[in-house]
Amino acid sequence: MKSFLLIGQSNMAGRGYLNDAPAIYNENIEVLRNGRWQMMAEPLHNDREVAGIGPAASFAAAWAQDHQAEKLGLIPCAEGGSSIDEWAEDQVLARHALSEAKFAMETSELIGILWHQGENDSLNGQYKDYAEKLKAVFGHFRQALSLPELPIIVGELPDFLGKSGFGQSAIEFKEINREIQTVVKGTKNSYLVSAENLASNPDGIHINAESQRQFGIRYYEAFKKRINVAHALGNEDEQLSRIYGRETTTNEKIYLLSRDFALGKLDYQTFMKKFAEITK
Amino acid sequence: MKSFLLIGQSNMAGRGYLNDAPAIYNENIEVLRNGRWQMMAEPLHNDREVAGIGPAASFAAAWAQDHQAEKLGLIPCAEGGSSIDEWAEDQVLARHALSEAKFAMETSELIGILWHQGENDSLNGQYKDYAEKLKAVFGHFRQALSLPELPIIVGELPDFLGKSGFGQSAIEFKEINREIQTVVKGTKNSYLVSAENLASNPDGIHINAESQRQFGIRYYEAFKKRINVAHALGNEDEQLSRIYGRETTTNEKIYLLSRDFALGKLDYQTFMKKFAEITK
Repeated sequence: MKSFLLIGQSNMAGRGYLNDAPAIYNENIEVLRNGRWQMMAEPLHNDREVAGIGPAASFAAAWAQDHQAEKLGLIPCAEGGSSIDEWAEDQVLARHALSEAKFAMETSELIGILWHQGENDSLNGQYKDYAEKLKAVFGHFRQALSLPELPIIVGELPDFLGKSGFGQSAIEFKEINREIQTVVKGTKNSYLVSAENLASNPDGIHINAESQRQFGIRYYEAFKKRINVAHALGNEDEQLSRIYGRETTTNEKIYLLSRDFALGKLDYQTFMKKFAEITK
Repeated sequence: MKSFLLIGQSNMAGRGYLNDAPAIYNENIEVLRNGRWQMMAEPLHNDREVAGIGPAASFAAAWAQDHQAEKLGLIPCAEGGSSIDEWAEDQVLARHALSEAKFAMETSELIGILWHQGENDSLNGQYKDYAEKLKAVFGHFRQALSLPELPIIVGELPDFLGKSGFGQSAIEFKEINREIQTVVKGTKNSYLVSAENLASNPDGIHINAESQRQFGIRYYEAFKKRINVAHALGNEDEQLSRIYGRETTTNEKIYLLSRDFALGKLDYQTFMKKFAEITK
């Protein structure tokens, strides 16, 4: 089993509305809960009550299409509103994410980090030492995980920032993007993911559900081909259609039926009848 | 700041439907997320997609009424479907819960454990060595936390078990309850909480939202008075009315308004207008 560590701030944690994009379930994609693996269900994160869709679910689904017989685990450790300083090696977010990653690594091979952060540093000239701090974060994670060449996939900040709602404060997002580019350029096995044409929630700061799904496809393109993805891919929605259209397996049907029963959406007789139909 | 560790299986994690009981928000009650404290919002756990209301929120709200100027932190580590064997000291659930507790203890004083487990062991004669295993779990947590006298509050299994739905398998819940009583009797600073008159979800195994709220009040009674709570208290709903009727503070109003804005329930103009009203 392979795994990825998800770190950064809210747009990695996910704030896309859960009802605004088709759900993704796949028995080969799991998420770390209490140090163990469970079948993935969104939200992956619970850093906040408002956690929703991030880039990781469609990333994982794209990965799963290319690795039909393999399992992938996601380690959700992104934290809404966190600044780059809060990811420094002595800070609790970094120490906790490393602790979670090490639990995951007892039963999986960590093959990459998905990172998205910078909104909180897009003001007051904080871009001036951002590159140095980001480089230190990446270096520390690789060193602490004893994986000096671990691929790190780095999303750019979206260009809807600086304009409306809570996004208004992030006026220096272009400067931060420049610094992110510099770090990726200078860091072996790190790859940049374009945020071109991503749309926001009405709050003006969080990437919406549909765009997060597209963003995840780009993250996977960067990981798969070990390239910088400089623009929107053009075929993201086509790839997403294949993901959404995938046939539900028996195990997934049982999971969804059991979930609906647990939530009181059907009675026991109906549950048993449907269960028999699925497993016959 | 004080804190409690929440461990056990699904009825500690919480499966009461979120919409079936009034929400509890209190700026003095926080929950551990990514190793840091955030204002409590239910579900506390995310061990499964179906996580909902457990006993800890009303427990904490009752504690907060008696400690007006203090903060309380909850450390959610219960795991749905876990057996007593899975809480043994070498198992990942125990190691992970201890890891989380230690993050919490960097910034809080751990003053107790809330425990609820046993449904998974209520069959096939597993009660025969349950007491021994439960005693070992309690001993290990206290030893590993270097808190040999840490209070442990232990809920009984509810008597709706063994009858319907998924609860049908838990036919030996009375035997397990007997073993739990034995362990509490033989363990200093541990206290029993009656599950009398608790009602289940339609699945026949999970305590419903309203009953979980009542259960939490009993857990607090046991903690506060350092007694075994042998029966329903009689005044649980009265206590819950006081909790639900508590006046919302300015910080809580800001939290709830920001949450609704983040979820797209109001536009930026309305958000700003209401924000100004709250903070004027």
